[in-house]
Amino acid sequence: MSDDPIYDKDAATPDSWAALATKQMKGLAPDELTWITPEEIRLRCLYTAEDIADLPYTNTMPGMSPYIRGPQATMYAGRPWTIRQYAGFSTAEESNAFYRKALAAGGQGISVAFDLATHRGYDSDHPRVAGDVGKAGVAVDSIEDMKILFDGIPLDKVSVSMTMNGAVLPVLAGYIVAAEEQGVGQEQLSGTIQNDILKEFMVRNTYIYPPAPSMRIIGDIIAYCSEHMPRFNTISISGYHIQEAGANAALELAYTLADGKEYIRTAIAAGLDIDQFAPRLSFFWGIGMNFYLEIAKMRAARMLWARIVSEFNPQNPKSSMLRTHSQTSGWSLTEQDPYNNVVRTTIEAIALPSEFAARIARNTQLIIQEETGITQVVDPWGGSYMMESLTNDIADKAWELIEEVENEGGMAKAIESGLPKLRIEEAAAAKQARIDRGEDVIVGVNKYKLNHEDEVEILEIETEAVREAQLKRLAEIRATRDQASVDDILTQITRVAGGEEGNLLALSIEAIRRRATVGEISDAMEKEFGRFKASAQTVSGVYGAAFSEDQGWKEIAGDIDAFVEKHGRRPRMLVCKMGQDGHDRGAKVVATAFADVGFDIDLSPMFSTPEEVARQAIENDVHAVGASSLAAGHKTLVPQLVEQLKKQGGEDIIVIAGGVIPRQDYDVLYDAGVKCIFGPGTPIPQSAREVLNAINQIQGG
Amino acid sequence: MSDDPIYDKDAATPDSWAALATKQMKGLAPDELTWITPEEIRLRCLYTAEDIADLPYTNTMPGMSPYIRGPQATMYAGRPWTIRQYAGFSTAEESNAFYRKALAAGGQGISVAFDLATHRGYDSDHPRVAGDVGKAGVAVDSIEDMKILFDGIPLDKVSVSMTMNGAVLPVLAGYIVAAEEQGVGQEQLSGTIQNDILKEFMVRNTYIYPPAPSMRIIGDIIAYCSEHMPRFNTISISGYHIQEAGANAALELAYTLADGKEYIRTAIAAGLDIDQFAPRLSFFWGIGMNFYLEIAKMRAARMLWARIVSEFNPQNPKSSMLRTHSQTSGWSLTEQDPYNNVVRTTIEAIALPSEFAARIARNTQLIIQEETGITQVVDPWGGSYMMESLTNDIADKAWELIEEVENEGGMAKAIESGLPKLRIEEAAAAKQARIDRGEDVIVGVNKYKLNHEDEVEILEIETEAVREAQLKRLAEIRATRDQASVDDILTQITRVAGGEEGNLLALSIEAIRRRATVGEISDAMEKEFGRFKASAQTVSGVYGAAFSEDQGWKEIAGDIDAFVEKHGRRPRMLVCKMGQDGHDRGAKVVATAFADVGFDIDLSPMFSTPEEVARQAIENDVHAVGASSLAAGHKTLVPQLVEQLKKQGGEDIIVIAGGVIPRQDYDVLYDAGVKCIFGPGTPIPQSAREVLNAINQIQGG
Repeated sequence: MSDDPIYDKDAATPDSWAALATKQMKGLAPDELTWITPEEIRLRCLYTAEDIADLPYTNTMPGMSPYIRGPQATMYAGRPWTIRQYAGFSTAEESNAFYRKALAAGGQGISVAFDLATHRGYDSDHPRVAGDVGKAGVAVDSIEDMKILFDGIPLDKVSVSMTMNGAVLPVLAGYIVAAEEQGVGQEQLSGTIQNDILKEFMVRNTYIYPPAPSMRIIGDIIAYCSEHMPRFNTISISGYHIQEAGANAALELAYTLADGKEYIRTAIAAGLDIDQFAPRLSFFWGIGMNFYLEIAKMRAARMLWARIVSEFNPQNPKSSMLRTHSQTSGWSLTEQDPYNNVVRTTIEAIALPSEFAARIARNTQLIIQEETGITQVVDPWGGSYMMESLTNDIADKAWELIEEVENEGGMAKAIESGLPKLRIEEAAAAKQARIDRGEDVIVGVNKYKLNHEDEVEILEIETEAVREAQLKRLAEIRATRDQASVDDILTQITRVAGGEEGNLLALSIEAIRRRATVGEISDAMEKEFGRFKASAQTVSGVYGAAFSEDQGWKEIAGDIDAFVEKHGRRPRMLVCKMGQDGHDRGAKVVATAFADVGFDIDLSPMFSTPEEVARQAIENDVHAVGASSLAAGHKTLVPQLVEQLKKQGGEDIIVIAGGVIPRQDYDVLYDAGVKCIFGPGTPIPQSAREVLNAINQIQGG
Repeated sequence: MSDDPIYDKDAATPDSWAALATKQMKGLAPDELTWITPEEIRLRCLYTAEDIADLPYTNTMPGMSPYIRGPQATMYAGRPWTIRQYAGFSTAEESNAFYRKALAAGGQGISVAFDLATHRGYDSDHPRVAGDVGKAGVAVDSIEDMKILFDGIPLDKVSVSMTMNGAVLPVLAGYIVAAEEQGVGQEQLSGTIQNDILKEFMVRNTYIYPPAPSMRIIGDIIAYCSEHMPRFNTISISGYHIQEAGANAALELAYTLADGKEYIRTAIAAGLDIDQFAPRLSFFWGIGMNFYLEIAKMRAARMLWARIVSEFNPQNPKSSMLRTHSQTSGWSLTEQDPYNNVVRTTIEAIALPSEFAARIARNTQLIIQEETGITQVVDPWGGSYMMESLTNDIADKAWELIEEVENEGGMAKAIESGLPKLRIEEAAAAKQARIDRGEDVIVGVNKYKLNHEDEVEILEIETEAVREAQLKRLAEIRATRDQASVDDILTQITRVAGGEEGNLLALSIEAIRRRATVGEISDAMEKEFGRFKASAQTVSGVYGAAFSEDQGWKEIAGDIDAFVEKHGRRPRMLVCKMGQDGHDRGAKVVATAFADVGFDIDLSPMFSTPEEVARQAIENDVHAVGASSLAAGHKTLVPQLVEQLKKQGGEDIIVIAGGVIPRQDYDVLYDAGVKCIFGPGTPIPQSAREVLNAINQIQGG
């Protein structure tokens, strides 16, 4: 016993603690409090010095490899992080006004959200995007839109982040030419373009071309920017969308880093040296609600990236430093009792499309930076028994997943085999099952529900007006430009896409200078590259396994058996995504869960038109079509689907809508003939029951 | 060099880090990033294993002394904390409805806010409290109010926290009798009564009697409850109000623990053994915005309390365990852009008087408990180089302050000398100076201000109606009770207060059973104890020192010199607190800062009536009266003050109002004749300038 009257050091051991804990918990051993996370990490309720004694990396220093404590020596104590808000308000004018206001109110950089048509390389006048123009971001067709977007924003001083992957060439070229016409040279530009196509094939689906030519575009961009744009991050390798698609933290971490490794290989294959481009690679994480795990994820990411880059023998330490941007999760936000989202994004440290929401979101960041003292200390968790252990645990889990991808020959090949997408969809189905079973609590959604939801102001987008304005501006630009010169550069682009020597970004910049449009530049490449069509696969059994003992679930399965008995086949539903909305997590989860309970499920190709979906529904003789909408196209596309079904002879096929649909729009859809609408947070057994009842009503169940 | 290609352990030293940091910061040494906190703790930007090598307490175990990692072995991993909302809605009926609703929506206990009149031991019909009934909480005059307050709430199951210090005897007695009349025995009652009178003398001012008899009441309560109410916390020793009064974390920590030590001495002097009562002592911390320091404060508090209790030779380990309740800070909330307060209280982990605010506040706690995984791990910061160092640093600072109090003979004596109050007021003045100078940022108040503040819905209290209802109920109870029996018990109370053998809580319970009122029981004791009047002292020089080089400040001082030149005396202002509102931080800070710039300042006694303030203003021949209101009495009391000044011949004395006054009420006050109104967040130099200008206008400056 020591001299200290209040501390008997020898008596304070993990064993004596375990004995005390068991006694205080009336016989329950503390191991029973261990939480097996979705990543299969065992998070125990106590960590002590013993837990970190044998870890490979403890007491490391920030600014030095393996960078667990941060890539910079003084991190945010030297300079706080840059606050940016992802925003795009349909038109370049509105977006520009928002950015200017945000910069004046404490925002420190801008982050552009483009509309769905732009993402997919379509001009606003393309027939396939009639319902998508100005949805989920700003419509940009040409340099004229870009100039308005950045009007009065000094591009030599304000850093610009652009979320663009599919139409990355014409959009990046547009930004460069807009700066040029402001008098700002390429070498002065700072910011980031997402340009992360691998995760598009895995989760977000805003690709245009197949994987191989898409990777070649990335090689061209890295090569061009490493020569001409030293302050610009040529790629933002994104875990955010992988998390949004339902991945757990280990999957997000592993696949993002594996994507990064593949981009390194691509750039090296394009003839670059690792130190020429690796320092300009940046990462982008989603930050969810699991406080400890998210911190451990970011600490582990730095170490794992240093390990990956070391395989390519970098000489410049900057090549090994993981630099990152983070965004709070959209997945964890709820439609129900929406003010709770302010609380959630504070914990995750919002971006909803209203001025008020944007203000609160920005203030959240400012309060954290200015009022809490959090930035004062580099890696405050350094040395924490729990955090050091958890960092090591998640690093090990992620490394296993990275090795699995490597064994398939790297991420590009793994994506072709479909493994990463299936692993993510499994995680998403498992998560949905945990939520629907109340194991993962979401306050206000599956616990502590409000009896009556308040009315919430939603920003309505006048799509038709936005599209008219874009069409007018496109007509003007086409009427006033030198068409021969435009045709000439577009032909060159097609040739270089086909194999002639040249850099596609350099050519796109010239095409934009000559007033070629985003759609025209994209089309010029599509002639050679083709447009990618994804195969529709879903996982099986994950959701259903979690409900195998659930009474309600068994009853639905029994009623489906009765349906088969009566009609000679299963109730059949086509799950579809229409328009340019690429968010297919919800559709995939519904498809797998409905299949698990006994429905026959078909999936439409991504980016279908209502006409195409109606045709497929009739050809497949389905009882119902479930349209999943997450990008505000429902008021246009869903009534068109009902119309097309009638027109093509499928008037007895039930139409169901699900996804992010404001309650104010429900009556419009019901009036159009939609039978059921399922908002976010609807447990799948409930929706399966209602769909089956609706089919039975029509078919005579 | 080790074998690990990414980690050179020998090269990663604090020295090499410092060299790297200096290089990356272009010559700035990392020491220059060290933040000297208001507690005079040096918070450095990096902590490493070296920093914790020599600390006395590292790798301690939760549940074991010195309890740094928590008093219980499994803490919140075993059972999450109890969520309570401090609320009282003027009437017992409304409060009861709120509690029932909150319990149904996930609240886990209730916390009663009493009105100002009840706090100070006045029945609602007392002439001094005409403007205070139903303000800041529920009016409780008798057992009939208590029964309504707890109607339908099973007091054997729901734990009740009551913030009551002055009228602690009749209120605690009322709760006990309400339970008794529900059929619930005293031994089944769980919860907490604040009963922390020392901090009332130091900061909050809701005392009734002088210190010595007040401490004797505490002795009687501890003695009674340790015998009859084993599940009830007899005292909640509060740092919260010390922080709200402007204390820094070290002062809050030190004075709260020193208060605790004094209560131990009081109970021992009352003949109890340490182990009889120490396990039922509980603590109550305010949680402000300084994230790291607040965590370190709570860890240090556990160790320091174990150290203090060890001096009394406890045999039961529970006597040394600091159990606590915490509440997010009110001080850090802002009137400006009030939705930012959701963000702040999430960080501090709201209680504004509206249903919506209460819902968001409750959901904040629920989201933290249910969605973040934070409760899964006991003391997650254990081992963190920074947190272990900071815990030690703040413990050392607090111990110095505790020893200073001990050198004065303990807290009761220190309070008589006025030292703790002055130290707190110094800290408050220093903090106000940092805010007014923009050194401490408050988003939306002194940085990133809104151009236009949104309208906010405020709960209006119909004071007159509340008072009428209370008067009616008082009249009924007095008409129907056995008056002789009431008179008899009240006489007994007076005798025991005067020295006869007996326990004042036991007698108060009997008095409540016989339908004596809160005011009558309080009066019975006041006959012997008298009512305490605080002396008005203020600190000097702290605020002014921070502005000594400020141009605007020098100009005000110069203009005051010119005023003296012209009028032969300084501009003189009486700063007053009217009604039963005891929050005097704002009044004290304004008084000291105005004095520092050159005003002659008088302070009214606490709890003055408008008539008394007007008399003092005229007697002291002041130019202005500044009325500070933080408890919603402004619409009644300030117009009465203007009226009284006119009536008594002081019509040329300017009236100024400051404090928590909703913008909707400004016109009412201006119409009543108020010259200036200063809301929260007004920098003092601005208010000093406006007051001086207003005086000059009347006096001819």
